[in-house]
Amino acid sequence: MARMAYPTVAFQGERGSFSEEATYKLLGRRTRVLPCETFAGIFESVASGKTRFCLAPIENTLAGSVHENYDLLLKHDLHIVGEVNLHIVHNLIALPGVKLRDVRQVYSHPVALAQCGRFFSEHSNLQKVPYYDTAGSVKMLIERKLRDAAAIASGTAASFYRAKILKLHLEDHRENYTRFLLLSKKPTVSQRADKISIVFSTRNQPGSLFRCLSVFALRDVNLAKLESRPLRGKPWEYFFYLDFVGNVKDERSRKALDHLGEIVDFCRVLGCYESGKR
Amino acid sequence: MARMAYPTVAFQGERGSFSEEATYKLLGRRTRVLPCETFAGIFESVASGKTRFCLAPIENTLAGSVHENYDLLLKHDLHIVGEVNLHIVHNLIALPGVKLRDVRQVYSHPVALAQCGRFFSEHSNLQKVPYYDTAGSVKMLIERKLRDAAAIASGTAASFYRAKILKLHLEDHRENYTRFLLLSKKPTVSQRADKISIVFSTRNQPGSLFRCLSVFALRDVNLAKLESRPLRGKPWEYFFYLDFVGNVKDERSRKALDHLGEIVDFCRVLGCYESGKR
Repeated sequence: MARMAYPTVAFQGERGSFSEEATYKLLGRRTRVLPCETFAGIFESVASGKTRFCLAPIENTLAGSVHENYDLLLKHDLHIVGEVNLHIVHNLIALPGVKLRDVRQVYSHPVALAQCGRFFSEHSNLQKVPYYDTAGSVKMLIERKLRDAAAIASGTAASFYRAKILKLHLEDHRENYTRFLLLSKKPTVSQRADKISIVFSTRNQPGSLFRCLSVFALRDVNLAKLESRPLRGKPWEYFFYLDFVGNVKDERSRKALDHLGEIVDFCRVLGCYESGKR
Repeated sequence: MARMAYPTVAFQGERGSFSEEATYKLLGRRTRVLPCETFAGIFESVASGKTRFCLAPIENTLAGSVHENYDLLLKHDLHIVGEVNLHIVHNLIALPGVKLRDVRQVYSHPVALAQCGRFFSEHSNLQKVPYYDTAGSVKMLIERKLRDAAAIASGTAASFYRAKILKLHLEDHRENYTRFLLLSKKPTVSQRADKISIVFSTRNQPGSLFRCLSVFALRDVNLAKLESRPLRGKPWEYFFYLDFVGNVKDERSRKALDHLGEIVDFCRVLGCYESGKR
């Protein structure tokens, strides 16, 4: 990524979101960003050529996969060119001068609220208010000058909106990571790429998934992730999203993919990229 | 189920919810119901003996798995004793006398709003308002006597709250089904049971999932579903939830499970039950 001078990355959410943190972690602080309202919007931003990249959260170690983005990967013809894992830390954020005892309502995205269950059971006087975005709830506090409310969001959001962190680490589980994928129209594969993501579908008959996995197991290829998604219009049939260790330039990976092609009805390589540090 | 005289079933949501429709479809109209606020609440209702059963949505053909309920299955020691598939029809519902042209806001659960994308793009003057529950949004319209708003919910919700259906079939995709599981403290297995649900975890090394699936494939056992869930506290390691065709009283299924036990670190049978009609 080092040679690209300040590309623009579209992400979902307001300025100061976890996606923005992840963008800087992957591409550096000087990266230009374009906040978008929806996940569909960030994919369209790349598809239309408006931005070179978008960064999409695909999986959280507690909440699981972000299904909408799996579906958008299939809908658009974009390529995964990078990956980053971000440690998610939830903070209680309020206007400068506001104390915890002043707070009545706590705004945040429903997933963030759900990940701070212990905090809310220890502070049963606080009312959880679902909001569309974590960073957006900090922005809203500032705009409306609310002094009886707080938000749960990233440290980046607190500093971006010049709000104050009342309490760090509200999350129930410290092992809270989100995996983001960097997507581009151009299928660049770096020499350091060590992970391949594919999507395939197969007939629902005994042993069909087993046969698919054999093309990897018989070649000692390690799987990183397997996820099933319902096939639209075909109830109870599934797409499989699979990540495996390899590079499309290696013979072993190429042969496994060719072999898979013999077995399945449909298969697409979504990208080959350098895996994010754990 | 026929011999049990009117058991009580806990479900999540307000009266008139899709879960209530599904309860009646599985156990008949005379079943007694207990609406609960949360999914955790319906599991606790059975665990504590307050109700004999609860009915939990586990998967929607468009939205995918209901992860929270997969996690609750693992947390509680309940058994799957039945399954029902419900066709989801989204209706626009308002107070009697309200016309479509009067409506400004449309309340519903975010998943229901997302499944009616076409309707909202054809009616761009309507504002989507996320609400905690589909049936709950109808209840709220009635309580607040809102005449400039409507809700998206089931036909059951419209009749329960004596509201009017303004428009049927708002959903983008007709093939919209939700699969519900009936859970009980007692592990009853009926003679007609033809599906087994298990959860297991295995070491992340080449071929480990392949070896697990071999115990089914080598015995011609058909898989119905495979779902991975992150292991809490162990980032990027997974549980696998697997459904397969069989009955724990059949030798073939028992041998497959014994064989799996030799391979995996952890395995639990979640239930053996009659599969719902498609």
